[in-house]
Amino acid sequence: MDYTLSVLVQNRPGVLSRVTGLIARRGFNIASLSVGPTEDPTISRITVVVDSDPDSIEKITKQLHKLIDVYKITDLTDEEVIERELVLYKVNANSERRHEVIEAAGVFRAKIVDMGKNTMTIEATGTMDKLKALEDLLRGYGIKEIVRTGKVSLGRGSRD
Amino acid sequence: MDYTLSVLVQNRPGVLSRVTGLIARRGFNIASLSVGPTEDPTISRITVVVDSDPDSIEKITKQLHKLIDVYKITDLTDEEVIERELVLYKVNANSERRHEVIEAAGVFRAKIVDMGKNTMTIEATGTMDKLKALEDLLRGYGIKEIVRTGKVSLGRGSRD
Repeated sequence: MDYTLSVLVQNRPGVLSRVTGLIARRGFNIASLSVGPTEDPTISRITVVVDSDPDSIEKITKQLHKLIDVYKITDLTDEEVIERELVLYKVNANSERRHEVIEAAGVFRAKIVDMGKNTMTIEATGTMDKLKALEDLLRGYGIKEIVRTGKVSLGRGSRD
Repeated sequence: MDYTLSVLVQNRPGVLSRVTGLIARRGFNIASLSVGPTEDPTISRITVVVDSDPDSIEKITKQLHKLIDVYKITDLTDEEVIERELVLYKVNANSERRHEVIEAAGVFRAKIVDMGKNTMTIEATGTMDKLKALEDLLRGYGIKEIVRTGKVSLGRGSRD
């Protein structure tokens, strides 16, 4: 199953490589990963989704804790969290199909962010379920390119 | 300056670690990175932003090309591209400040996605410039947590 870990690390060369290397050495694939600076620019947050099992994720977490540049690890898998991903889809759409694509995007509250002669690019955000449904719909038009940010998560305010 | 590389790789354990390791060994810090599956689930796309210089980025690109699991590298730095990032901000906002935060979010077409007794969580997407402006505004309320997806980019349809 997919486990989501939020890892706070020092923002310096090599840290991301050590974190991903540790997961790879245990033979697990990273389904998605996002990293960027936090409210403190010296600290970055890595959100990583790993397809693993309970025993292995515990071992991975323990080993990550031992890395000198890792400050904090939160397992967000079963927590009550807000999870979001951003996806850009470039789909085939000539002038005859454009209105259909615009309609489909509207239903999912997605935005049309670019239009070429034969393509349209859609920006969508949401939970994994919602994005999967939109993707299934857009596949009918022919998806030329997909770019995903990977999932990010934040604990709900009710827990504070 | 910041360089944006879009790297198509085989979706299997260890590939991300080799890519990030190669950049780290040259001593460059990864400003942001996103990875997720593409329209073909056996292939993942890594979008990586590296603060580097022209000579070094050329060397990094050449070395990345030599990795067996790397299929294609596109330097999106100077291209005409659509670039987007998703950020979740958790800000301090008790009942008295809520309407101000809702107003600020509205101006930036951001969404309130959660509300606790003393906090609100805002989901915003856009270009780096827009998100920086929103962040500066929200800092006035006190930002408790920020989670960024890192930048993703797609070539404009007019180039197809």
